[in-house]
Amino acid sequence: MQNKITSLFNIQLPIIQAGMIWASGWRLASAVSNAGGLGLLGAGSMYPEVLLEHIQKCQKATNRPFGVNVPMLYPDIDRLMQIIIDNGVKIVFTSAGNPKTWTSRLKDKGITVVHVVSSVKFALKAQEEGVDAVVAEGFEAGGHNGRDETTTLVLIPAVKEVLKVPLIAAGGIATGGQMLAAMVLGADGVQVGSRFVASEEASSHINFKNEVVKAHEGATQLTLKELAPVRLLKNAFYEQVQAAYAKGASVDELKQILGRARAKKGMFEGDLEEGELEIGQVSALINDIIPAAEIMAGLVKEFEMAKKAVARL
Amino acid sequence: MQNKITSLFNIQLPIIQAGMIWASGWRLASAVSNAGGLGLLGAGSMYPEVLLEHIQKCQKATNRPFGVNVPMLYPDIDRLMQIIIDNGVKIVFTSAGNPKTWTSRLKDKGITVVHVVSSVKFALKAQEEGVDAVVAEGFEAGGHNGRDETTTLVLIPAVKEVLKVPLIAAGGIATGGQMLAAMVLGADGVQVGSRFVASEEASSHINFKNEVVKAHEGATQLTLKELAPVRLLKNAFYEQVQAAYAKGASVDELKQILGRARAKKGMFEGDLEEGELEIGQVSALINDIIPAAEIMAGLVKEFEMAKKAVARL
Repeated sequence: MQNKITSLFNIQLPIIQAGMIWASGWRLASAVSNAGGLGLLGAGSMYPEVLLEHIQKCQKATNRPFGVNVPMLYPDIDRLMQIIIDNGVKIVFTSAGNPKTWTSRLKDKGITVVHVVSSVKFALKAQEEGVDAVVAEGFEAGGHNGRDETTTLVLIPAVKEVLKVPLIAAGGIATGGQMLAAMVLGADGVQVGSRFVASEEASSHINFKNEVVKAHEGATQLTLKELAPVRLLKNAFYEQVQAAYAKGASVDELKQILGRARAKKGMFEGDLEEGELEIGQVSALINDIIPAAEIMAGLVKEFEMAKKAVARL
Repeated sequence: MQNKITSLFNIQLPIIQAGMIWASGWRLASAVSNAGGLGLLGAGSMYPEVLLEHIQKCQKATNRPFGVNVPMLYPDIDRLMQIIIDNGVKIVFTSAGNPKTWTSRLKDKGITVVHVVSSVKFALKAQEEGVDAVVAEGFEAGGHNGRDETTTLVLIPAVKEVLKVPLIAAGGIATGGQMLAAMVLGADGVQVGSRFVASEEASSHINFKNEVVKAHEGATQLTLKELAPVRLLKNAFYEQVQAAYAKGASVDELKQILGRARAKKGMFEGDLEEGELEIGQVSALINDIIPAAEIMAGLVKEFEMAKKAVARL
């Protein structure tokens, strides 16, 4: 399975594990990299010193390439990026912001830069800024999400039509069949998020992992669009938000309901009532908590089976 | 390309043309059936006597199987169904309602019945009622749409896991690559809507067809969820709806803004400002108005190319 993505990152399989807040620490990232994919640390939920610790532990746990996902809205982003540069991280995925600010500065340091987008417009913008690859993430993805609500099935071929750099599909991919579908649509590789939340190595709270396993089709919703659209499980906190909408809540009232540290409370501390539980629609297809290496092996096996099935069509 | 779907309908290609309001008359349906797919008349925008005329003209225009799509909320549904039964239509697709009411009555008359759903729950319900196949339609589809907002990439494998009858994928399918992706995900066939709006034979107004061709990624939105969720182009009418939301409009006020015959005004009469223009996200990938037979040939050609590309992965 060698292609543009495996060459770009010097990995064995074109599978990237998403750098998710409260889930993607050194244990998960190193396990995925050791299994031949690309593990990413999720810096969005880490203080700079915490990220430093995770980078150092990840370097000890694997000799293979891994990267860091950095949401550009991170308040202390200069310090975070300095840690990444100083500690020899060679791959950075940027998201939730303008790729102009950091792409060339990181590339000048010899770092491979990938930007996550949710539309054709932002894919072109990222390419203009000189990124090495683009992740195009569809509406079905968990967590923060684009305003155009374009789904992976439409977004990937639409981006592919105009993009010259390699394209990674994200959103709705948890099986080898979905991985093959994404590649049929024009992706060179896939970024998998939700499936790795339900891994043994994810730092997510076990209560949250169990909810992901239990989730059925229709269990998530994209909400809080007036603040920043986010896909989450429909738990008690979500019902609170819905009740506020029903009463015609203002943006300020929504902000107050959201409050601070809801995501940590839900995904890291395991408060299933009051916490925010960010996960993709594809949680409907996730039925177990297993080691990351087994997830990787399953993806490859299903991918190969799906390929054989195509030959019989 | 013989499979469960081609056998079920006695057709050559597992491609169904959606029975869309104001687009799917006898010219389009017969052209698709003559090209080896299954053409559907869209009864949702036809008075009973108009449907009768379209059935009779379609029967003259093709010797091959065709069907009728009937939204179950149709006010005069008994008369409509009687016309379908009396005139020897052999295939009925029901949508937007409970499959319990009509499935067995139609099947008793020897009619093949397919029900359109947007969730696993409704797919199982349709199967229980004895339908011959299910269309599972994702969030990216144009027109009326489900409340769970599950995308085709997630919905198809989720439905496939539990469904015994044949499965037809809909929503976001306008190219042979997307068709193959849907079949990789577990579909036995595809229902294609938006692509056929931009056909020479569609009865849609040329102004609307031109807008579909012009539409870019992000040009549609699912809105009016408090009434019945509908995906449409973001035109002046859509902006009116958005302005009403911004002012905190009630359901009654939204109903008043929608008014009557908006869909006809937009899609059939070509009023791009005041009309409702229902189309799928995949309009982003549609760049020409061509005969239905060319659309069919293109789908097959792209499908075969995509299959070959898979073999090289």
